[in-house]
This record gives sequence, structure tokens and C-alpha cells, in this order.
Amino acid sequence: MALQIAVIGSGVENEARAEEVGRLIAERGATLVCGGLDEVMAAAARGAKTKGGVTVGILPGESRAQANPWIDHAVVTGTGHARNLAVAASGDAVIAVGGSFGTLTEIAYARILGRPVVILDPGWDAGLDGVDRAESPEEAVDLAVRRAQTRRV
Amino acid sequence: MALQIAVIGSGVENEARAEEVGRLIAERGATLVCGGLDEVMAAAARGAKTKGGVTVGILPGESRAQANPWIDHAVVTGTGHARNLAVAASGDAVIAVGGSFGTLTEIAYARILGRPVVILDPGWDAGLDGVDRAESPEEAVDLAVRRAQTRRV
Amino acid sequence: MALQIAVIGSGVENEARAEEVGRLIAERGATLVCGGLDEVMAAAARGAKTKGGVTVGILPGESRAQANPWIDHAVVTGTGHARNLAVAASGDAVIAVGGSFGTLTEIAYARILGRPVVILDPGWDAGLDGVDRAESPEEAVDLAVRRAQTRRV
Amino acid sequence: MALQIAVIGSGVENEARAEEVGRLIAERGATLVCGGLDEVMAAAARGAKTKGGVTVGILPGESRAQANPWIDHAVVTGTGHARNLAVAASGDAVIAVGGSFGTLTEIAYARILGRPVVILDPGWDAGLDGVDRAESPEEAVDLAVRRAQTRRV
Repeated sequence: MALQIAVIGSGVENEARAEEVGRLIAERGATLVCGGLDEVMAAAARGAKTKGGVTVGILPGESRAQANPWIDHAVVTGTGHARNLAVAASGDAVIAVGGSFGTLTEIAYARILGRPVVILDPGWDAGLDGVDRAESPEEAVDLAVRRAQTRRV
Repeated sequence: MALQIAVIGSGVENEARAEEVGRLIAERGATLVCGGLDEVMAAAARGAKTKGGVTVGILPGESRAQANPWIDHAVVTGTGHARNLAVAASGDAVIAVGGSFGTLTEIAYARILGRPVVILDPGWDAGLDGVDRAESPEEAVDLAVRRAQTRRV
Repeated sequence: MALQIAVIGSGVENEARAEEVGRLIAERGATLVCGGLDEVMAAAARGAKTKGGVTVGILPGESRAQANPWIDHAVVTGTGHARNLAVAASGDAVIAVGGSFGTLTEIAYARILGRPVVILDPGWDAGLDGVDRAESPEEAVDLAVRRAQTRRV
Repeated sequence: MALQIAVIGSGVENEARAEEVGRLIAERGATLVCGGLDEVMAAAARGAKTKGGVTVGILPGESRAQANPWIDHAVVTGTGHARNLAVAASGDAVIAVGGSFGTLTEIAYARILGRPVVILDPGWDAGLDGVDRAESPEEAVDLAVRRAQTRRV
């Protein structure tokens, strides 16, 4: 089973960075996991697909029609915001690109479960112990892959 | 996005039938979705992999280490038996191979959400309206694919 | 902590029976747990309140405004149909009054978790092992309370 | 239906403050909602019971035997850390007393759903927009009740 990297976050202003993160994840041969919807989730998935990567979208609603066009495999949870736990838990490491309170639930869930988290600056700055920070998409993916490989869940 | 067929059920006595169902799903080019654990879930995934198919395992626990060896993409829900909703909802159609009360929750969830359900006989016989029955793995997969194609979720 | 009896089911035609079940649960001093919405859930809660009972409604949505007027304590799960697991699991015993596929998920979840289930006839007839049947609200509540007291979860 | 105030947090060092918060919630006639387990959850519930209040515990596991002794009504979710969404969503307002990453998921969920949040200092300091801070249990409960009354969910 390939390494799985979850990309979380939101905000149209973060799409370019998210797309680059997605491209780099695919180039590393890892599977991209995300929430399957728009903005950062769509941009990251699009980036992965431009490099021949594989994408899994974990959706909050009850239909896979919610998925953005770059999702290969849609998981339809039907559990609303509770699906944020599944997004975080399904990553061997988690990269946060921008984001709001939903992203914060995912960062916190990842830490509860011991998943390494990398925040691509600028992003949540919250006295979050045990969370790495990266200054570029390259550094974020490098750190995430390295952390995931040394501590597989 | 490829068609997704969920295979549900349990019981070691049903593994041979489940493996054949998995093989046939892969030959049709559909992605196999299952609960990611043992018995019917493992047999169906193994069958799909012998034919070059793709498998998604939606796990109840908090670690992908739970996944059987034939799962390509593990979704770690952390929500216990509530993940049965996600298994049912993630199939464009659902095939039940044997099974106990967990399988029954998945059949019922599939019906709530309008997913076509095919029960491979012998299996639950419960006055379940709107549920097809099939006498062989071939018939089960044929019916599931046909129903899924005429009513994509 | 008082005994908790979950009442599940649906259908306006079952409201009178559900209300009687709610009254009898309150007279026994047990807390009534239900899904908090309309039809059987509302009727059972209304019955309990007419006898001074206590009611807990476990809601699928994201707002307590969903709760029927006879709910004392609203639990807002935000997890859609996955909340059916919580309804079943929160009963020391479960009584089914009519119902459709949602009710079937709750019956099956109750059995997975070892909660005693009493189906008030007519109701699901589905080769459901380990499920008691009762011919009247009195018999249903008697059975549920007895089963719950001898096997507390 | 009475006002519902959710108390979240953890840490034995915060139990005294949590117990005082629980007492004050009961004196205001509000129902105390919490995660039903130990430390801050138990202390808050104990405080509420010493003043004749009502307590609801929303448990992560599959048995009400998990509940602390001061829980009147146990909701058994069976969904692990995903139950944090239900704890946050079930409060008309939320008070955080200390706490770690689990508490952070609840604060963030509360904000996603528009529930007012009061952090009893010292506690998470994380650039959390729209979150009030209080310096004493009295101030925390005053703020929470006022915010809940002016913006009922």
C-alpha cells in the first residue's frame, strides 16, 4: 500500500500552493487523500492528477456527486463535519494549506492520533505542539514524507 | 471516476463466493469498496487484486494497520460501526455475500440512500423491499453493475 | 442513573402505539431515548411527558431546533443517519414500533452491541435472531425493562 | 427545553475550576452537557449534581459503563473521537476549561456551527477568532449563558 498524505485547508487564495503540494505528492508516489470538495481540496487533487497521481476524496455528504473532478476514489461518509476525523486519520502524514476552523479540527485530530502534521506557512499559529512548519510546498512535502516514513501509522 | 461497487458480508464459509465477486468486479473495470477487514472483505479484495482491480477499504478503527493485505487505499474512519454507513454510501451499488447484523445495517443504509442492493443467495431474507437477489457471483455482479449504471448516485 | 429505554420506529399509523409505549416507560421510571424527530419519536416522547417522564432526543442534524417539543435533552450529533448507532447504543433495551430501513439499522446495531430488542408487532419480520416480539405496548415495555434489568450494558 | 451548556477540557489540574463551572451552570438552571468521562468532564458533572443540576454525558465508546458517576443521562455514541462534534453541537454555548487537542477539536467544531465559546483562562491561545475569554468560573458561566440566550441554536 502506497504512502497516503492528507492535504487539508481551505481558501481560494491558497489554491496555487495546494496544487503544487498535490503535484509533489504525486511525484513522490504517494496517494493524496483530502476532503474531496472545492478550493484547497480540489486544487491539491488537480495537482496530483497532472502528475499521474492517485486521489481519494472523503466526502461529508451522502452522494459522490459532491466530489470535485480530480477525485479518483470517493468515500461518501454521510457524517458531515465528523468526516474530518477520517481525513486526518487516513493520512500517514497531514499537510495543512491555509484553512479555517474545519482545518483546525483536522490538525487536532491528527495530533490526537499521532499523525505527523506539517503546516505550510502562513497558516494556523496556535501554540500547536508537535506540529512542523514549512516555508514552501517542497519543504512541506519533504517533511511530510519523511515523517510518515519514519513513523508509519 | 470509475464505477464503485461495495461488497459487504461476513463468514469464512462465504469467502470463495466473495473472492469470485471481487474478481468479476475488477474484470468489469469497477473499483471494489469494502470494510477493509477480514473474511468476506478480504476475500473480495483479494479476488479484485488477482484481476488487477483497485480496492478501497473503509476501516472502523484508528489505524490503517487494520487493513487486509489486498487493500490499495485505506480510509481510517475512527468511528466504529458507524463506518458501515460510509461503506454502503460509497457504492454505486452494493453486493451482500452472507453476513450478520453488521451486513444488515449496510443493506438498510444502502436502501435509505437509494443505492441498489443485490443479495447473493443464500443471504438475508427479511422482507427487504427493493433488494435484488442473485443465485451466482456472475448474476450478482451483472445486476449490480447494470443497476449502478442506470442509476448513478 | 435511571434505566434508559430507546424507542425506535416510524409511521404516523404507529403513533398511538408509540405514545402508549412512552407513557409506560415513564411510569416505570425509565428515561426514554429516541431519535428526537417526528412520528413515532415524537409520539413516544409525548407519551412519556404526559406521565412526568424524562426524554432524550439524539438528533441527526446540526441544530437542536430539529427536536420535537417533548424532548427534554437534545443531543445534536451532526452525523446524519450514523446517529442511528447512538440511538440504539444508548438504550439498555430497545423497543421498535413499526419503522422502515432506518429502524432496521437501529435493530441491527442494537444486536451487534448486545442490547435486548423488542419488536412491537406488527413490525419487521426478518429472521432476526435474538429479538423478542410483543403483542401489546404493555408486553413490549415489560419485556424491555426485564431484559434491561437482567443484562445492563 | 432548558438551556444546555457544554463543558469541555481535560487535566486533573483543572478539576477545581471545572467543578465550580458545573455548580454555577446548575444554579442558573441550565443543563450541563459534557463528554461523560473523567477529569474536567467528571468534575463539572459533580459540581452540577451538588447543586441539583441535570447532566448529560456524550460518550465515545459502546457502553454507558464508561460514564462517570455524576452523569444522569448517558448517550453512547460508539464513534470515538468523532463524538466531539456532538459534544460541541449539543451546547447552546461551550465553556473550555484547560484541555488538549481533543478540546481544540470541540472549540473548532463549536465555531463551525456558530456556538458561542468561552475559554476559561488559562487555556488555548491560538488566534481563535470569535472566542470569548473569561478570568473566573463566574465570568465564564455568565458569558456563556448570556451568549446562549441571545443566540439560541
